[in-house]
Amino acid sequence: MRIAVDAMGGDNAPEMVVQGAVQAVAESGIDITLVGDEEIIRAALGRRSDTRSIEIHHCGETVLMDESPIKAVRMKKDSSIRVAFDLLKRGRVDAVVSAGNSGATMAAGLLNLGKIEGIERPALASIIPGDKGRVILIDVGGNVDCRPIHILHFGLMADAFSESCLGLNDPKVGLLNIGEEAGKGNEQVKTAYKLLQESSLNFVGNVEGQDILSGQVQIVVCDGFVGNVALKLAEAMAENVSRRLKDDMMDSLLGKVLAMFGRSFFDKFEKTLDYAEYGGAPILGINGVGIVCHGGSSARAIKNAIMMAVDYVEKNVQDRLAVQVSELQTVSS
Amino acid sequence: MRIAVDAMGGDNAPEMVVQGAVQAVAESGIDITLVGDEEIIRAALGRRSDTRSIEIHHCGETVLMDESPIKAVRMKKDSSIRVAFDLLKRGRVDAVVSAGNSGATMAAGLLNLGKIEGIERPALASIIPGDKGRVILIDVGGNVDCRPIHILHFGLMADAFSESCLGLNDPKVGLLNIGEEAGKGNEQVKTAYKLLQESSLNFVGNVEGQDILSGQVQIVVCDGFVGNVALKLAEAMAENVSRRLKDDMMDSLLGKVLAMFGRSFFDKFEKTLDYAEYGGAPILGINGVGIVCHGGSSARAIKNAIMMAVDYVEKNVQDRLAVQVSELQTVSS
Repeated sequence: MRIAVDAMGGDNAPEMVVQGAVQAVAESGIDITLVGDEEIIRAALGRRSDTRSIEIHHCGETVLMDESPIKAVRMKKDSSIRVAFDLLKRGRVDAVVSAGNSGATMAAGLLNLGKIEGIERPALASIIPGDKGRVILIDVGGNVDCRPIHILHFGLMADAFSESCLGLNDPKVGLLNIGEEAGKGNEQVKTAYKLLQESSLNFVGNVEGQDILSGQVQIVVCDGFVGNVALKLAEAMAENVSRRLKDDMMDSLLGKVLAMFGRSFFDKFEKTLDYAEYGGAPILGINGVGIVCHGGSSARAIKNAIMMAVDYVEKNVQDRLAVQVSELQTVSS
Repeated sequence: MRIAVDAMGGDNAPEMVVQGAVQAVAESGIDITLVGDEEIIRAALGRRSDTRSIEIHHCGETVLMDESPIKAVRMKKDSSIRVAFDLLKRGRVDAVVSAGNSGATMAAGLLNLGKIEGIERPALASIIPGDKGRVILIDVGGNVDCRPIHILHFGLMADAFSESCLGLNDPKVGLLNIGEEAGKGNEQVKTAYKLLQESSLNFVGNVEGQDILSGQVQIVVCDGFVGNVALKLAEAMAENVSRRLKDDMMDSLLGKVLAMFGRSFFDKFEKTLDYAEYGGAPILGINGVGIVCHGGSSARAIKNAIMMAVDYVEKNVQDRLAVQVSELQTVSS
């Protein structure tokens, strides 16, 4: 198996990306194609000896984090993210992982691979470390001004994804809203509620902000605007809490003593808050495996995202997704 | 000064509400009118001796948590929340505090007191314990399907509120969005961006989910749908982290030892995550002081919300708000 990794994508590219790729190779024995400026990638690889399974595919352009995604992807045909998905289209690699501009990653995936039949808008599914296990929050990728039918599609895709990839059978689906009662919310969610209710999904109704974590449902569907805000807030809170705990410790003698004796305890606690543990977020709805990582991903987060892509390919999630979506839609319609 | 407290409002009413009122009286020497079913309130007050400053105003109805706010407020003329705002309108009390149905509380305030001139939609301002001090998030009250002008108004009100009440001079205002660059987001925020930019506010541009905490801005404006989801998520995360820390401690011998020796440390840490510390959320934009508390408020949260109302009245925030909003709007238009 070979995974294409966008070596130029992310705030810490190419160093962290290359490090993550090296770690993934060491851990799993897969092959990796680093896509980007060869000279820069070679410098980042340095004198590492463990790079036999890593090849470099040179390209001359990069989509920057603040560029307009669709425009940049259309214009920059030799950008690392477009070239990576092009390799996937040509069957040279099995999946793409990128920590670059997430809108551009989605756009490049869509442009090169096309959509799964029946899906109007691909979406980004984030895996949240909830109180009672993983929760899929979809869309977090910035599909703004969604129509209600798109929210239904997000549910269908997440349902198919969760069964094959997370081992969840008939997961409960909740619609993110401002109250539990039917009839709450804006016009978009009121209509989405009806569509979800009429679908074959195990739809349990509206859920609220706290239920992204509570475990009441395993899938939370929402407009990409709300999902994006929620994800970034949750990530920031998890990170801040860990940092505050450390800062507080270094602030007092008691804290320092606790830190010294309680290291294993605090490490374990922090891990439950660690979003990097879950690697990246899959793009659901395109004809191929694409994983989007946080722009600020650490080497470990990149490595975990690559491992997620490997798992995704091994379990043949992509084909199952297409089949299940078409079956679910037949039942729904 | 006399504060009306909706004794029937909230998941833990009347017990927690009455306890909070008793604590507030003990702490500050103010007078309180508990509004609700006299018999039930008397039972909750029990044999407490410290109730001289507390009077009961009987009424026969209650708006339930899951009732449709506007309908319930219109129909139930003798409900505790309507009667409380009626007392405020008649000058019998100086402010209203309720942990009941927040939509109904806003609707009752609006119905009884009317809006500040120039404001189309009153909003709920939540005070978030951010990394670098308090941040005002507005609207969290469920003004869904907001027009861009409403989001501008939220900014104007929060600006006026922060100067007089939180001691913030010329606070930075950010628009909650899915990216920092201008031109990001849905149609609503794109237009709101322009209105904010043309206003007299210290508008710094778009901010993302993480900036609700980061301290990059002191005011975050958004549609009530997004704000409500974000607030509930943040509250839940803060609570969960504290609980996970405790659970983890009780799970291991090392944790138990740490808990025993580190109690003062952990108490301090938890306090930084404690949303109840900040009491309630003021309704901005109505002609009077109304504070909304979380439905699940503890006695301490109720007490803190009452103290916030007292502060709000003492500093004459309401008049200042009206003046500043009109001044800001003159500059804006």
